[in-house]
Amino acid sequence: MGLDGNGRIRYRAIIEYDGTAYVGFQRQRQPNSVQELLEQAITAVSQQPATVIGSGRTDSGVHATGQVISFDLDWSHGTAALQRALNVNLPPDISVRTLEEVDSSFHPRFDARCRVYEYHIYNSPVRSPIQRHYRWHVAKPLSLVRMNEAAALLIGAHDFATFGRPPQGKNTIRHVFVAEWRQEDARLIFTIAANAFLYRMVRTIVGCLKNVGEGSWDVAQFRTAFDAADRRQAAAVAPAHGLYLVSVLYE
Amino acid sequence: MGLDGNGRIRYRAIIEYDGTAYVGFQRQRQPNSVQELLEQAITAVSQQPATVIGSGRTDSGVHATGQVISFDLDWSHGTAALQRALNVNLPPDISVRTLEEVDSSFHPRFDARCRVYEYHIYNSPVRSPIQRHYRWHVAKPLSLVRMNEAAALLIGAHDFATFGRPPQGKNTIRHVFVAEWRQEDARLIFTIAANAFLYRMVRTIVGCLKNVGEGSWDVAQFRTAFDAADRRQAAAVAPAHGLYLVSVLYE
Repeated sequence: MGLDGNGRIRYRAIIEYDGTAYVGFQRQRQPNSVQELLEQAITAVSQQPATVIGSGRTDSGVHATGQVISFDLDWSHGTAALQRALNVNLPPDISVRTLEEVDSSFHPRFDARCRVYEYHIYNSPVRSPIQRHYRWHVAKPLSLVRMNEAAALLIGAHDFATFGRPPQGKNTIRHVFVAEWRQEDARLIFTIAANAFLYRMVRTIVGCLKNVGEGSWDVAQFRTAFDAADRRQAAAVAPAHGLYLVSVLYE
Repeated sequence: MGLDGNGRIRYRAIIEYDGTAYVGFQRQRQPNSVQELLEQAITAVSQQPATVIGSGRTDSGVHATGQVISFDLDWSHGTAALQRALNVNLPPDISVRTLEEVDSSFHPRFDARCRVYEYHIYNSPVRSPIQRHYRWHVAKPLSLVRMNEAAALLIGAHDFATFGRPPQGKNTIRHVFVAEWRQEDARLIFTIAANAFLYRMVRTIVGCLKNVGEGSWDVAQFRTAFDAADRRQAAAVAPAHGLYLVSVLYE
């Protein structure tokens, strides 16, 4: 299991990162992507060139507690030792939460059946310094009931063109399995799960649901914008620092 | 109410701050204390020199969600407008959560009857990037039952000399009202309330209780160290970034 033609093992890892300092998960023209730092750590540990594949990109400033990656490596000291060595070689804002050998056919993006994101709002008249990099501060009181009424419309297979553009091709149909807000004190947490997402889809949905929550849109307006399948109908995109990729599910 | 001899009003505020970037609450020889930045904001808003008094100092890197301060000001535009103006003039890592006029005899330190601190541990084999500035990462599994057994010994009026030195004078007797750990997933949260604290007292207690939790001390050893009233009996001090001043209680 896990061996490719060159005797290398394919590894699957769950990665956590604080996105604050990064240009995003994926390598860009400008430096400082999470992918780059993972590859540098693997090379530092193994003295081998490494290519990391992620389940999908996350934008600059977006966090992850459950990004899934794979990489191939010739390694004979065991998985636990590799995980420890990687964590020593990664900066404090990235860590390898779990590491395991997988079949060499495993692909984190193509094999993913469901991605789960959370969006965190801090809903209080006054901003919270301790939460400033991890939740969107919204001062106006938001109605969870109305936001959930609108969110329920998202569930199912729909054209999500209002909420984002496709990473490639023209297909803007996605299948949303879960879309629900819950409250923990002053925190409103949105969980959304789908087979895949358009660019900026979660943050654009959250921007629209925030309008519904504060009453500047009613649920019917949300429905009209959604049905229009037109990017120009969307509200302002919610900021990156409230968004977390929490898990990726495989068969 | 609130007017002093010069027509100034005394204000009481509850302050939140992320201590990561600061030398502590109290002004030091080196710049960048929370107190300084509060005074600068008050002066920027009012064009008046300001002196901020806090309920007590917090060390470099320690956070607060409920630090209480007072200051005197000649201000005629209302409390809500003053709070908003201060929050605009404070950096993102400090905020004024509440602001009210109080009697001019109010003193945040002398009038305080109880201080409540929390200490947050992240207890997991792997570090968490997102929590790295806000919880102490302890990799070894900790026993909440044993830590609570030892913590219960702290309750009451005792000599706490093992756990810290007095800010002034020689009195190391303090009265602890609450000392208890609770668990939320991988987070262990210690709440401790006392009439007052010695320097580094909470962090030193947490350092000792962590030894009990991981089994390198038993509860009897904790009791022996405590009873010795001798600083040299203490374990290593827990790091600052897990500590929060959460509230200060007045009569």
